[in-house]
Amino acid sequence: MKRVDLSVGSGGKAMRDFIEGVVLKHLGNHALDGLQDSAILSTPGKIAFTTDSFVIHPLFFPGGDIGKLCIAGTVNDLVVCGARPRYISLAFILEEGFAMDDLDRVLESIKDTAGAAGVKVVTGDTKVVRKGEADGLYINTAGIGEVVRREEGRVIREGDAVIVTGSPGDHGVAVMVARNEFSFEGNVHSDCAPLLNLLPLWEMEGTKWMRDITRGGLATVVCEFAEEMGVTAVLEEGQVPFSPPVRAVAEILGIEPLYLPSEGKAVIVASADGADKVLDYLRGAGGCPEASVIGAVQRKRAAVPVILKTVSGGHRILESLTGELLPRIC
Amino acid sequence: MKRVDLSVGSGGKAMRDFIEGVVLKHLGNHALDGLQDSAILSTPGKIAFTTDSFVIHPLFFPGGDIGKLCIAGTVNDLVVCGARPRYISLAFILEEGFAMDDLDRVLESIKDTAGAAGVKVVTGDTKVVRKGEADGLYINTAGIGEVVRREEGRVIREGDAVIVTGSPGDHGVAVMVARNEFSFEGNVHSDCAPLLNLLPLWEMEGTKWMRDITRGGLATVVCEFAEEMGVTAVLEEGQVPFSPPVRAVAEILGIEPLYLPSEGKAVIVASADGADKVLDYLRGAGGCPEASVIGAVQRKRAAVPVILKTVSGGHRILESLTGELLPRIC
Repeated sequence: MKRVDLSVGSGGKAMRDFIEGVVLKHLGNHALDGLQDSAILSTPGKIAFTTDSFVIHPLFFPGGDIGKLCIAGTVNDLVVCGARPRYISLAFILEEGFAMDDLDRVLESIKDTAGAAGVKVVTGDTKVVRKGEADGLYINTAGIGEVVRREEGRVIREGDAVIVTGSPGDHGVAVMVARNEFSFEGNVHSDCAPLLNLLPLWEMEGTKWMRDITRGGLATVVCEFAEEMGVTAVLEEGQVPFSPPVRAVAEILGIEPLYLPSEGKAVIVASADGADKVLDYLRGAGGCPEASVIGAVQRKRAAVPVILKTVSGGHRILESLTGELLPRIC
Repeated sequence: MKRVDLSVGSGGKAMRDFIEGVVLKHLGNHALDGLQDSAILSTPGKIAFTTDSFVIHPLFFPGGDIGKLCIAGTVNDLVVCGARPRYISLAFILEEGFAMDDLDRVLESIKDTAGAAGVKVVTGDTKVVRKGEADGLYINTAGIGEVVRREEGRVIREGDAVIVTGSPGDHGVAVMVARNEFSFEGNVHSDCAPLLNLLPLWEMEGTKWMRDITRGGLATVVCEFAEEMGVTAVLEEGQVPFSPPVRAVAEILGIEPLYLPSEGKAVIVASADGADKVLDYLRGAGGCPEASVIGAVQRKRAAVPVILKTVSGGHRILESLTGELLPRIC
């Protein structure tokens, strides 16, 4: 690849190839390898450290905005790594001429989301570029969390359950609607939210692995899990609790909803005998009534990370997202 | 201000007004207040946490590039806060079509600079926007350092010495030359460098305050110091060790070189009786042969943060940079 194309930012395979082939070639080290969202650092005490840039278009969408998104995204990266989010850095790249009123709205949203998530914005930076050198507002956040996850008993085994915490894909559909890419009458909201409710799962023995669904969708998260762990995951399409708008939009546009991005859902892998307890927590105190077991871990089949048992009874191989489904979705 | 203008990213007064009036209005908290470059966090052990975005144009300039700059800038923010830099996050915003060869060069430079500075890039993120939605490459870095500075005996007093570690302004001139803003025959290099050599100063009792010179130049750093501490600083223009290119360019263009940005120089405030030891270290093992005492701290004079005694024997009031001298200088 001689020039950057949009797929490098897709969250899917092209981005992984880019990170492995281009970034890690130069910068590979123990903490950076493995494509985790946060770096677990053994500097004074055990902290997690993560970063994300947000280039979402439009900045405001049903159910959220870039401000809520940038806090939730960073909080979630920490939570799924087993860390309690504590501190956030906030850096703006602003296009000359950006409306201050909009920035006020974004900051208000950042404040509210950070407050609700119990994190503090403790350092920041502002850069402004000339008109035409950015598109309104880009935000970068980095986050630090205290690691609460213990390492014992987290080994992935055949028979482990694959759980999704709720309907995947709502963020993707909400942003498409906000872009007026199609007319859709229905109540569509992004699921964008900080997932602190998942933190107690790290105190349960059954919880083995967790990742929030972002770019690349549910399918990409499960593929990454399977490839990382050297297993094959078998998913039951009929068990995935898609919301009606996601089902409808996927059907109308002919896209695979398993690749639609979320910003407030996660995939959890739990032990076979711990899955019920995890599910009970999620559906109860965890506030995820639609949490469902959607599949199981099996022994690795050559080069097949994920098999999808379709509702029509067939089998399909699922791979990480290739190319770019929705540029600037987060 | 209804719309963002370039001065909001200037590093000077307009940016401070923006941070205080717009950002802190929403997000003010103990750690974020005070406009320090790093947040000192009392989470497990004492760490410093900082962030910066880099939008410099052009990406490559005499003496450095955006890769070297993004590591040096973050390292320096930690060092001047009294922390030993340890971990860096690295986030790219790439414009579709950006040349991979250039990205390779940048990454190589990041690797070299991080290696030399003893920091590890431990987490990252990549976003790509469409052609015309950014200008090539923007980078955000966040950094974590271990605080080595002790608090005792750092109270600013009348008679404290103001020291600069070397010639200020070279970065600004190097970038202007790289932009072909004027033809200049001479050996101009950015001073862009990680300032780990300043870390041992925190073990000396005489060292009271330190800040690296970036956007806004030497004048803005000293103004911020004076306002923060409630003192007036009196600087001797003739003692500032400007390099010949900076002198020449300032004269040709009629600009005040005290506002020209650096990326590898710092201002240090030392006690009256500790200044010699600080200077000895800097000029010797510190590798700053041009380090000089350029002024002294005096009791506050109403609303005058910095007085410049000019070489012609006059007195001028210096204020923080207003407006935008050089957009996208870092």
